[in-house]
Amino acid sequence: MTGFVSFVGSGPGDPELLTLKAVDRLKRADAVLFDDLSAGPILSHARRGADLVGVGKRAGRASPRQDHVSRLLVDYARIDQRVVRLKSGDGGLFGRLEEELVALRAAGIPYEIIPGIPSAVAAAAAAGIPLTRRLTARRVQFVTGHDVTGKLPGDISLTALADPTASTVVFMGKRTFPDLLAKLLAHGLPPDTPAILAENVSRPEQLITRSDVAGLAAQLAQEVGDSAALILYGPLAEAPE
Amino acid sequence: MTGFVSFVGSGPGDPELLTLKAVDRLKRADAVLFDDLSAGPILSHARRGADLVGVGKRAGRASPRQDHVSRLLVDYARIDQRVVRLKSGDGGLFGRLEEELVALRAAGIPYEIIPGIPSAVAAAAAAGIPLTRRLTARRVQFVTGHDVTGKLPGDISLTALADPTASTVVFMGKRTFPDLLAKLLAHGLPPDTPAILAENVSRPEQLITRSDVAGLAAQLAQEVGDSAALILYGPLAEAPE
Repeated sequence: MTGFVSFVGSGPGDPELLTLKAVDRLKRADAVLFDDLSAGPILSHARRGADLVGVGKRAGRASPRQDHVSRLLVDYARIDQRVVRLKSGDGGLFGRLEEELVALRAAGIPYEIIPGIPSAVAAAAAAGIPLTRRLTARRVQFVTGHDVTGKLPGDISLTALADPTASTVVFMGKRTFPDLLAKLLAHGLPPDTPAILAENVSRPEQLITRSDVAGLAAQLAQEVGDSAALILYGPLAEAPE
Repeated sequence: MTGFVSFVGSGPGDPELLTLKAVDRLKRADAVLFDDLSAGPILSHARRGADLVGVGKRAGRASPRQDHVSRLLVDYARIDQRVVRLKSGDGGLFGRLEEELVALRAAGIPYEIIPGIPSAVAAAAAAGIPLTRRLTARRVQFVTGHDVTGKLPGDISLTALADPTASTVVFMGKRTFPDLLAKLLAHGLPPDTPAILAENVSRPEQLITRSDVAGLAAQLAQEVGDSAALILYGPLAEAPE
């Protein structure tokens, strides 16, 4: 058998934020399975004639189709195809990489993992903010804003997330942030902690909004929908603009 | 004035993990200021005739030469040069980006920040481990193992770092890990928590060593020197190998 799967992080969306290795694997792929957020110009690196298969999942979002994606990967590899499984950002960060790795291992199919630019890191760069600071932000943490049922996870460490000396990035957390913030305030996070809402990072429609955690929660409580946004909060105030 | 500075994350060392945007900026630079870890083949993308200036700092390590680097950036930009400031990994993660941004702002010099593949993310990919898991690892955190004096920072949240349901990556922490672990065990981290030592990630001499936190601390207590290593610990045990 010569089938092989490359898990490739596509970065946050800007095709210029692909790595050279990602481009190489796309060029050589017989089939590319991609998420919503890694579609568009990124796919232009695939060779003409390659199968381009949208599997319609956004990074970190629960989906009934997870088994289906794993099965597709296995099926393509079993007919000796070179497969690229393109995941937005970095596949190991809220990308549900685990389930697909387990399926490939169970089927005895070889694979590699190629890291990508995490959306959280791209968001900080776009906002002009270092996620760590020598004196005021020595810890940075990424957390998901919802569990498989779409609710705020019940078992995350609120003490860790309420630490005002850490930079925190919440993935897919627009809808649950008002609920999360109520808990964080009860654990001592100051309501005027600087916050940034980063939407469509690195894309033409990118929008970076600065406020504080209380103001952001009030704003999000009024919104409907759940775009691919990140929420950053912590010692971001001293940041160069 | 036409001087301009691009802060460019070079990724962990493998030149194939450069982004297309990083390559573009290197090709167009008049001067490239680089750290130890972003030297080597990565610099081959610079055009012939560009100034290549090693500033001899490893990511996250304190250096008496920080002022010197900021001054060089300003000086190059003031004579209308296009400058690339290459930082290993992602510049915003323990890369002391803040000080250089502040210097450029004070001098009124325009700049951009281009994110890079963080070494922590590349280490996890090399070890075949998703940093987050749907059920067992919903939070991931990065922390530095030493402060500006080289000691373990005194003010980091041990509760956050002792959480066995988070994946943790310690940057530049080989020397201080035995000290850190003693504190984490006192805060409830189980001594058999899976751990990985990732040295020279993505380079030909890459070495990934799996153990548990107690075993790793015992090993590191015997070692001298302080190579560019990352320590990962947390719910990594179920990982595909």
